[in-house]
Amino acid sequence: MAHPNDVTLRSFIPVDTASDFPIQNLPYGVFSTSESTTPRVGVAIGDSILDLAVLENEGLIDLAPARDIFAQASINAFMGLGAEAWSRTRARISELLRHDNPELRENELLRSRALVPMARAKLHLPITVAGYTDFYSSREHATNVGVMFRGKDNALQPNWLHMPIAYNGRASTVVVSGTKIRRPRGQLKPPDAKLPSFGPCKRLDFELEMGVVIGQPSAMGEMLTERQAEEMIFGFVLLNDWSARDIQQWEYVPLGPFQAKAFATSIGPWVVTREALQAFRLHGPVQDPTPLPYLRQVQPNNYDLHLDVTLRAAQMNAAVRICQTNFKYMYWSSVQQLVHHASSGCAMNIGDLLGSGTVSGPDKHQRGSLLELSWNGTEPVELAGDITRSFLEDGDCLAFHGWCEAEGYRVGFGEVEGTILPAE
Amino acid sequence: MAHPNDVTLRSFIPVDTASDFPIQNLPYGVFSTSESTTPRVGVAIGDSILDLAVLENEGLIDLAPARDIFAQASINAFMGLGAEAWSRTRARISELLRHDNPELRENELLRSRALVPMARAKLHLPITVAGYTDFYSSREHATNVGVMFRGKDNALQPNWLHMPIAYNGRASTVVVSGTKIRRPRGQLKPPDAKLPSFGPCKRLDFELEMGVVIGQPSAMGEMLTERQAEEMIFGFVLLNDWSARDIQQWEYVPLGPFQAKAFATSIGPWVVTREALQAFRLHGPVQDPTPLPYLRQVQPNNYDLHLDVTLRAAQMNAAVRICQTNFKYMYWSSVQQLVHHASSGCAMNIGDLLGSGTVSGPDKHQRGSLLELSWNGTEPVELAGDITRSFLEDGDCLAFHGWCEAEGYRVGFGEVEGTILPAE
Repeated sequence: MAHPNDVTLRSFIPVDTASDFPIQNLPYGVFSTSESTTPRVGVAIGDSILDLAVLENEGLIDLAPARDIFAQASINAFMGLGAEAWSRTRARISELLRHDNPELRENELLRSRALVPMARAKLHLPITVAGYTDFYSSREHATNVGVMFRGKDNALQPNWLHMPIAYNGRASTVVVSGTKIRRPRGQLKPPDAKLPSFGPCKRLDFELEMGVVIGQPSAMGEMLTERQAEEMIFGFVLLNDWSARDIQQWEYVPLGPFQAKAFATSIGPWVVTREALQAFRLHGPVQDPTPLPYLRQVQPNNYDLHLDVTLRAAQMNAAVRICQTNFKYMYWSSVQQLVHHASSGCAMNIGDLLGSGTVSGPDKHQRGSLLELSWNGTEPVELAGDITRSFLEDGDCLAFHGWCEAEGYRVGFGEVEGTILPAE
Repeated sequence: MAHPNDVTLRSFIPVDTASDFPIQNLPYGVFSTSESTTPRVGVAIGDSILDLAVLENEGLIDLAPARDIFAQASINAFMGLGAEAWSRTRARISELLRHDNPELRENELLRSRALVPMARAKLHLPITVAGYTDFYSSREHATNVGVMFRGKDNALQPNWLHMPIAYNGRASTVVVSGTKIRRPRGQLKPPDAKLPSFGPCKRLDFELEMGVVIGQPSAMGEMLTERQAEEMIFGFVLLNDWSARDIQQWEYVPLGPFQAKAFATSIGPWVVTREALQAFRLHGPVQDPTPLPYLRQVQPNNYDLHLDVTLRAAQMNAAVRICQTNFKYMYWSSVQQLVHHASSGCAMNIGDLLGSGTVSGPDKHQRGSLLELSWNGTEPVELAGDITRSFLEDGDCLAFHGWCEAEGYRVGFGEVEGTILPAE
């Protein structure tokens, strides 16, 4: 049987070459429809969703002794089965979707029950987020922010090149793409104000990130090797770490960002498996100084993964692209982040979500936040006509896209999208 | 029927006047025994635990339409029933335990099943921790730390008097009293070292805190009033925010503590309800400057709650008290902390745990951490003979106790205890 990543595989379901979801991808998500409102697990294929709860129930996917793994509102139970089950299930789904396999193709009744047009589905948060941690691992991003606020000579903090810096985020407000984002209120104290005031954030921003979804736990007190960390990673999602720059500026010394990041984090509906991304692995930037032994990596743990950001203001007819970058630029890999995360003995759980940190690249158009794109408001981004942006305005609709390019197809993430609502 | 806080109430179960658990307390915990190993919910009364799963099953406590609320490994489901159910259930438990009520007292068979000697019980983590947030709300503590690291003139950060400063902690490593604490490893870079190294923490510390247990949720995007916040608080626990000072020193700029706090947080086994603490409420310190309107409070939201810390080194026969303070000194109340936490629109969940921040008082013996007690190692704490401590050593057993004093009884929290294991 061909490996599910085999480039020659084709599905009996038509998939456009520009689709994010060829048979080589098979990302997991959670969906419902107006006819069947109970959320369950599916995989994206072309313009359709394959309902895995139906297939499991019909015995076409066998996870015994586990049962009802896909008739659930998150993929956590499936992730809990472990890497062997992930691999076996993906291979089986691939087999069922192949153009030359009649099992599903020729079973019209089953096909009509198991295949749902994506346009008719409502997509839900794919994971139950156990913990959410946000890293800060793009050297270009950290340098840009450092230059803006501390000047060129002190751009990177002394610890930055020695470990993946991070803070714990707020899991309770991780939402799925399409969820509208209410402009937060908070304490603001512009540099020229004598006292803080409380009101709507005036410097609302996005951060273009990838999220790593942890699929297997580690025990309290246990450190991880590069290999163990890699094997705990189930997959990746698009992630928008919405940020209130002005709230952050006033609150963050000395304990870090709190309310500035707590109001919302959006993730994409599709979790692309680590296995589907194998062909796109590459080595990250050379790390100098050489990391301490526990952080050294041998494998190519970065990914050649294209990312872009589009913005459409309420008065615009079409979105315009404001950033185009690549996940490959990250200085610290997801594997290093996870190794560091567990290094003190911190237990990791199924459903933990690790934000990569803003993905910026070396060029100006590769900056993954408005803070950087508008250089702290001094160079507003031109959208269309006389519409410009230094920070987000009410009604702005922001979308990220991510994809890996192969010969003849792409392995994509769909999008993570959010529209800004005015503060209440 | 007398209110369950009535000072004249007595139980048919003998309760020593020095006990933390008179009939006026009735704190919730989760326990199991060697005969019945399934964890379930109970309340402490004297030296016994009343098994609420048995009482619910027998129909003596009726939470209908909810079922099997106490036959669970955490109190989260019970908390989810809301404040009216909390109050009604506590009144009913009080009624069942009264000296003049024969229902349980005269039912020998039921009594033998429902009352478990505490000495024979294993106590579990009482809550499933949804999110863990750690505040920094003692002015004395923040000032002490500030003086040590930034000098007297810049002790308090500019934002400190304007809002309760906090960071998100790590929920996955919140453990119950009695869990042994492995000395963490991490990146260390003493001021005189040129490069960081990775190894066992050399400046391991405790932080004496109270934890607030959130019993009702708030919606994303929703702000809270003082009253709403108060009503979401189910109760309080003792909390030890174990801290690796040296890991923190190197990692915390600019995103705050991460691995320095991620290895363990211990909480007490007994959640004392807000209702049981009513009689001990008082107003906190005068807040000057007056907080912004959203943080103003009318009610007395502090508590006259005695706290102490004892330490026993491996070679000592008895523990010695190294700190004696009071929760009443906190500058920002738990209610203000919760209001601030939700102020950006951050959703709060059932089972969220909010650490108060280290509770220090104005006097030297009231300092709630070794960092402060030993003044950053310059004045080692004398324990016994020639045994002193600047920071914790392997084998040290540390315990916190907390209690409110009334005429003739006390409403206490038991203890939170942990012994330091060497790094692996």
